[in-house]
Amino acid sequence: MCVHSFEKSDRLVNEKVFKDPVHDYIHVRHQLILDLIDSKEVQRLRRIKQLGTTQFTFHGAEHSRFSHSLGVYEITRRIVDMFDRNYPNDWDPGMRLVTLCAALLHDIGHGPFSHTFEKIFETDHEAITTDIILSEETEVNAILKRVSLDFPNQVASVITKQHSNPQVVQLISSQIDADRMDYLQRDAFFTGATYGAFDLSRILRVIRPYKDGIAFQYQGLHAVEDYIVSRFQMYMQVYFHPASRGMEVTLDRLLYRAKQLYHEGALFPVFPLLVPFFEEAATLSDYLKLDDGVLQTAIILWTESDDAYLSELAGMFLNRKPLKSVVFEKGQDDEIVEILRDIVGKLSYDKNLYTMTNSSSDLPYDYKLKSKTPIQLIHSDGTLVEISTVSSIVKSLSGILHGDHRLFVPKEFLEKEIANINMFQEEYDAFQHYIKNGAITHPKD
Amino acid sequence: MCVHSFEKSDRLVNEKVFKDPVHDYIHVRHQLILDLIDSKEVQRLRRIKQLGTTQFTFHGAEHSRFSHSLGVYEITRRIVDMFDRNYPNDWDPGMRLVTLCAALLHDIGHGPFSHTFEKIFETDHEAITTDIILSEETEVNAILKRVSLDFPNQVASVITKQHSNPQVVQLISSQIDADRMDYLQRDAFFTGATYGAFDLSRILRVIRPYKDGIAFQYQGLHAVEDYIVSRFQMYMQVYFHPASRGMEVTLDRLLYRAKQLYHEGALFPVFPLLVPFFEEAATLSDYLKLDDGVLQTAIILWTESDDAYLSELAGMFLNRKPLKSVVFEKGQDDEIVEILRDIVGKLSYDKNLYTMTNSSSDLPYDYKLKSKTPIQLIHSDGTLVEISTVSSIVKSLSGILHGDHRLFVPKEFLEKEIANINMFQEEYDAFQHYIKNGAITHPKD
Amino acid sequence: MCVHSFEKSDRLVNEKVFKDPVHDYIHVRHQLILDLIDSKEVQRLRRIKQLGTTQFTFHGAEHSRFSHSLGVYEITRRIVDMFDRNYPNDWDPGMRLVTLCAALLHDIGHGPFSHTFEKIFETDHEAITTDIILSEETEVNAILKRVSLDFPNQVASVITKQHSNPQVVQLISSQIDADRMDYLQRDAFFTGATYGAFDLSRILRVIRPYKDGIAFQYQGLHAVEDYIVSRFQMYMQVYFHPASRGMEVTLDRLLYRAKQLYHEGALFPVFPLLVPFFEEAATLSDYLKLDDGVLQTAIILWTESDDAYLSELAGMFLNRKPLKSVVFEKGQDDEIVEILRDIVGKLSYDKNLYTMTNSSSDLPYDYKLKSKTPIQLIHSDGTLVEISTVSSIVKSLSGILHGDHRLFVPKEFLEKEIANINMFQEEYDAFQHYIKNGAITHPKD
Amino acid sequence: MCVHSFEKSDRLVNEKVFKDPVHDYIHVRHQLILDLIDSKEVQRLRRIKQLGTTQFTFHGAEHSRFSHSLGVYEITRRIVDMFDRNYPNDWDPGMRLVTLCAALLHDIGHGPFSHTFEKIFETDHEAITTDIILSEETEVNAILKRVSLDFPNQVASVITKQHSNPQVVQLISSQIDADRMDYLQRDAFFTGATYGAFDLSRILRVIRPYKDGIAFQYQGLHAVEDYIVSRFQMYMQVYFHPASRGMEVTLDRLLYRAKQLYHEGALFPVFPLLVPFFEEAATLSDYLKLDDGVLQTAIILWTESDDAYLSELAGMFLNRKPLKSVVFEKGQDDEIVEILRDIVGKLSYDKNLYTMTNSSSDLPYDYKLKSKTPIQLIHSDGTLVEISTVSSIVKSLSGILHGDHRLFVPKEFLEKEIANINMFQEEYDAFQHYIKNGAITHPKD
Repeated sequence: MCVHSFEKSDRLVNEKVFKDPVHDYIHVRHQLILDLIDSKEVQRLRRIKQLGTTQFTFHGAEHSRFSHSLGVYEITRRIVDMFDRNYPNDWDPGMRLVTLCAALLHDIGHGPFSHTFEKIFETDHEAITTDIILSEETEVNAILKRVSLDFPNQVASVITKQHSNPQVVQLISSQIDADRMDYLQRDAFFTGATYGAFDLSRILRVIRPYKDGIAFQYQGLHAVEDYIVSRFQMYMQVYFHPASRGMEVTLDRLLYRAKQLYHEGALFPVFPLLVPFFEEAATLSDYLKLDDGVLQTAIILWTESDDAYLSELAGMFLNRKPLKSVVFEKGQDDEIVEILRDIVGKLSYDKNLYTMTNSSSDLPYDYKLKSKTPIQLIHSDGTLVEISTVSSIVKSLSGILHGDHRLFVPKEFLEKEIANINMFQEEYDAFQHYIKNGAITHPKD
Repeated sequence: MCVHSFEKSDRLVNEKVFKDPVHDYIHVRHQLILDLIDSKEVQRLRRIKQLGTTQFTFHGAEHSRFSHSLGVYEITRRIVDMFDRNYPNDWDPGMRLVTLCAALLHDIGHGPFSHTFEKIFETDHEAITTDIILSEETEVNAILKRVSLDFPNQVASVITKQHSNPQVVQLISSQIDADRMDYLQRDAFFTGATYGAFDLSRILRVIRPYKDGIAFQYQGLHAVEDYIVSRFQMYMQVYFHPASRGMEVTLDRLLYRAKQLYHEGALFPVFPLLVPFFEEAATLSDYLKLDDGVLQTAIILWTESDDAYLSELAGMFLNRKPLKSVVFEKGQDDEIVEILRDIVGKLSYDKNLYTMTNSSSDLPYDYKLKSKTPIQLIHSDGTLVEISTVSSIVKSLSGILHGDHRLFVPKEFLEKEIANINMFQEEYDAFQHYIKNGAITHPKD
Repeated sequence: MCVHSFEKSDRLVNEKVFKDPVHDYIHVRHQLILDLIDSKEVQRLRRIKQLGTTQFTFHGAEHSRFSHSLGVYEITRRIVDMFDRNYPNDWDPGMRLVTLCAALLHDIGHGPFSHTFEKIFETDHEAITTDIILSEETEVNAILKRVSLDFPNQVASVITKQHSNPQVVQLISSQIDADRMDYLQRDAFFTGATYGAFDLSRILRVIRPYKDGIAFQYQGLHAVEDYIVSRFQMYMQVYFHPASRGMEVTLDRLLYRAKQLYHEGALFPVFPLLVPFFEEAATLSDYLKLDDGVLQTAIILWTESDDAYLSELAGMFLNRKPLKSVVFEKGQDDEIVEILRDIVGKLSYDKNLYTMTNSSSDLPYDYKLKSKTPIQLIHSDGTLVEISTVSSIVKSLSGILHGDHRLFVPKEFLEKEIANINMFQEEYDAFQHYIKNGAITHPKD
Repeated sequence: MCVHSFEKSDRLVNEKVFKDPVHDYIHVRHQLILDLIDSKEVQRLRRIKQLGTTQFTFHGAEHSRFSHSLGVYEITRRIVDMFDRNYPNDWDPGMRLVTLCAALLHDIGHGPFSHTFEKIFETDHEAITTDIILSEETEVNAILKRVSLDFPNQVASVITKQHSNPQVVQLISSQIDADRMDYLQRDAFFTGATYGAFDLSRILRVIRPYKDGIAFQYQGLHAVEDYIVSRFQMYMQVYFHPASRGMEVTLDRLLYRAKQLYHEGALFPVFPLLVPFFEEAATLSDYLKLDDGVLQTAIILWTESDDAYLSELAGMFLNRKPLKSVVFEKGQDDEIVEILRDIVGKLSYDKNLYTMTNSSSDLPYDYKLKSKTPIQLIHSDGTLVEISTVSSIVKSLSGILHGDHRLFVPKEFLEKEIANINMFQEEYDAFQHYIKNGAITHPKD
């Protein structure tokens, strides 16, 4: 049976809805989508928070990757419905199901606190996404195969950007795709950061397919511009917040210490669900048992570890007592960074566990990016214009990395009140000698 | 040092704010409050969801008891600030700190999926709240004692409603208290259920202290009325949703089975953090290690249990495949309920593990309730009027229990498509014989 | 050409949208609707405010009947689109255009401050609505006739509730129609009165056609309930506000005086556009020249009238200095009302121009109302249930008139500070003798 | 009595609030402010719409200058309250009243459709604002003099930027003042244009006084940046909308024609309230009788003028049939503009009445502007930084005029369907020869 006739026969008699605080309702009109949502691999995303350590700075941001996945699906559905209705000549309705499935499943490989976890345990959520879709073991794979034996491959190829239809690929992954549109709206809603909001309904009115991909009607210029600025604002004010990065660094050092102890045979308790990861031999099945709660449970147990470093770091993460930071200029301040790390190390702290640099950076938009297609505006006569050539705001943000470099250290070195215990005074002063207005400075003397 | 002078000296030079999606900002102006928020017992609330199994019906409702606790604190702070400013004769400013602390800490004893957990393991979150405040072991207790040795007792007495100042007690616990005001607004926001919204800013304008407690200016009648209706709506449409209760019942049966197996020596893996609870000998320290993630981690492990019942129930909970339900009339339908349970039991299901009744009920308002004072309106000349005497809407809801009784069974007995496997057809028909429009009916023949 | 083929040929190639702060976008998909919106009779509604004197109490409520008319159209369009898609057996798609036109035009006969204007000048906006639709003189009539010669009649018959299709009639005029749904949402939005908001998107999901009209799926019970309560709240808190009624009474007395002077030949300036109304001989063309601005311009001119009463009343209305009021019980307090009016009259005020009683009353819902059909809930098997039989809240509001009776007088008699001028003291005291807590009271002595 | 003791004695026992859809409540705490709001000059602003002809493009934008004036007052009050509380050393509390009064009264000189009216009748709303405050005839002046005889002068000097305290001046008039903050939020709310929203509560947290004016805490950089971008967006998408400008041009030509006829003695009816303006001899009292309704009433009367041009233009304005436009480049396309005007003139249209060019332009931000101080960020150590030196977005917008030039003509020349009447075909083609994609183009031949 071809995809198209499957699509028809698969339609639900009564559409099913999920109430969503961001999009009002998520509308599901295919049994296939409903079954994917009900699969254990998608349900697992309920137990993984969308924003990792950002929840420790913006306490409202406790939403899961499950919510986000439904949101990406819904935005895609609205676009695809509109394409079906308004652009029968430019859009292939046979792409409907593969696009919706890719939208729903694009984040399915994520694990707990992905960014940090992947660095320490050398996993890769993108590769795992593909594995979950293609593996014979998963419910997701079995459901997708109901369409055709090749359908899982098609869905995976959208996510890996190898699908032959550029429109489908760009809807799911470009510089203005359904993924980004949902996470900006959603993260803005849950953090309370109003600057993340942009006019989604206007963008959904001006988006359209053309031969080589997705474009936006020229009169939608300012709505797209506003989306790019909103994205920039969210990175600057929310995603790069130093306190969240302090929690990330603390988690990083904690997992690093646990792994170190494991390999020294000194980790107690060894938390069985994590062993495959310490061994770097985890199977897909091992991975699918992980979630935020599992990792945090290990950390709860480690607060009572015999290793003083591990137990302290575990407590710091669990009870939100992150390392604190100062800004530095890469290159220029590297020497001072090492001096400061040594000052910390001279006390009872292990320099490698209690200091760490962390860099944040985002490219708000770039017209010459390889991995993500640029944003095209389209005139009524079909002429295309790349947005940064007509928008001074977009041009000002284009191609420039934004973000900063920070050195994280125990808070005693940065907060006067705490440091005023005699034993620290000397080191505190030595440290502060290099700090001005929250940044590393080259002292004059 | 008296509370009052402590309060003055404890003020922060620069107030600290937390961005909140519901109240915009949470304003903290005392070091004491800041330190309580930073205590490990309050931080633990980040890992416990406010609405338990409701998250499985309204996927946006993933917010924690931590968020709610900050919200209750903030509403209380706004009221107390206004009382300080506008009612110097009717309100004792010395009550400020104890009220704010009680607001922040009122839910600190909650554990994972409290409702179900407490039933199976015979714990009591209210008693634990008091324990946490009074125990020498906790950070919360140590922080509170900075005010005075007796201060923890004072805070606890507000929560247990034994504090001598009725105004303070009613702000934290009455039929229209800061707790309810926050959870209605917050749960409405995160579920997307607009009917939960009421005019909080108007209520905060008309609330006022009087000699025996808290009252509302008469002209605020309709705002209070609207709050009561909103609360009723949230119970009917959100808190009592059958799907959430299906998940609750599933969790109940799962924990019941695990405990049963533990006492038979047949539970593998025994999850160490839960042992004290199976033994019904948990200490405060044991309790404070629990959170949603810990409980869910045990359930993840149990999906691989040798006990087929436990592993199936664990999978049902984890992957959101709840028992489904029909409504019945207590008393009138009890016999049929037993007939239906027997039909289920005749198949491969254990009747006690796969069927269960569950009753929901709420009193939206009651003027003669013992535990919670009624809502008083106050005229400009000081005359009090109990609200149900002047509002026909409130009168219509007053004193009447709302909710329903439901019998939960495996979904095969309620969903035609699934049941159309031959082996079930007979039992399915036998079961359906008693069902009409989602409720138990007395068959005519 | 039949309506159905007209409808097809009339579709716009590109739909046209109007940005709306309440419904986001108003979507227009027919040339006919676009032309009606562009007609001079519909454009005139831009110059007539939706809420009359309510703008003087809630300053945000400055929106026009034009906005509201677009909103009613849009809600109707969403419902009709859904009916076309989901209920092909229960809904006749040939009713599409007549329903949309009736929705857009239902208020087209309104004039400035209708309520007051009609009382003084004996006009009737409902009759004028029909006239505008049927008269050969209007652009609206010419546009409607493009469908068929009889089409204006059909549209008018929906508004007069004589159309043969009860579904169409009930969508436009029942106890829960598109008109009410828009004005509640819109008036809540512009006044800032959050209690007027209800879950419109949920109601639009559960509304459905059945043989004899419109019903709501049973599971939508609480959403409909919430709509009824919201409506009740808007009446109590917004539409019946005493200050707005004070402005209405002031306007009433002012127009009354102008008419009186006109008939005495003593009105200067005679404002030509109003002459046909003083003469009670206005044509449709005269009526269509009226709007808020025209009436207010007359009042501006009258502030310089030689007649001291007219100039004072004109100034009071223009500069928002309304008569103030006390509540009274009809029947019981009538005698005192007359005593109080006499006290006012004894001073330099004309009793008939400076005192007036005003009664507000609304029936939030009534199952036995003749003019508006009751609200039916429908079970999945088609059984109908009238809502007040299953909702205690609705029952409590059903069939009961809510509102109050007020006596309006110059504010000097009600505000102490102002009255403390010696010359009034005696009368002020005499008046106040009968007043307690803002209501008439029977003095004890 | 000095201002300070007046301020104390003038406080209301119970604050008075106005419900506002944008700021929730407007809080009034002084009798002086209440009386100013109740003055006839401020009440008159209820009858003048904030956005003039923008209402014809965004139908929700029907709010008045009265609403906006209350909003500017409220934002100023919140800032001043915070300055009083947090910056006793940097802010003079004696400036409270003069700042609040200036905020409330800053727009009091506006008339109907100011922009166009002032051009035709050579009035100046800024000069009139000062007149109203200083003239012995006005209620506003009398109320202000209760503070001191010199107080009206002080208030006026804030508005004319001559007040000696730069903080007060900058709060009311700078590149980020209370006026702009209110109108962006308010216009975004009423138009439905979400891009106009910015994080007002965050900006109100970081604004602060310093010696030479107003600055923003450095950490508020992105909030200020977002405000500048929002302002830019509102100009591009709302204020400069071609349809609104089409209505403005139509009004301009209509008033021009009326004035022309008046001076030829050929205007019938002569609308008496406008005569002083035709004569360019209007007094303050004449001016204060004008409002939107008065002007529209004249236009209603002129639809029946004997002059065909006037009656047609009046109908076009009243019934929203504006002239339509094409973009052109100033300088480069001037010749073609004249060619096109001539083509229009060759038909029955008067070239001067039916064609007109209109230029829109805004400077979103400029650090070297004379009339408005630049935006300063302030470090914790008091160092100031001008915002465009640290924000690439602001830099990209700084000092550049945005907007466009448009030629307005009868719509027949731009809309094919209409033009397809034979008589126009030739002129239509001649006109279109120079047009491509909505802009003037130099034809190749």
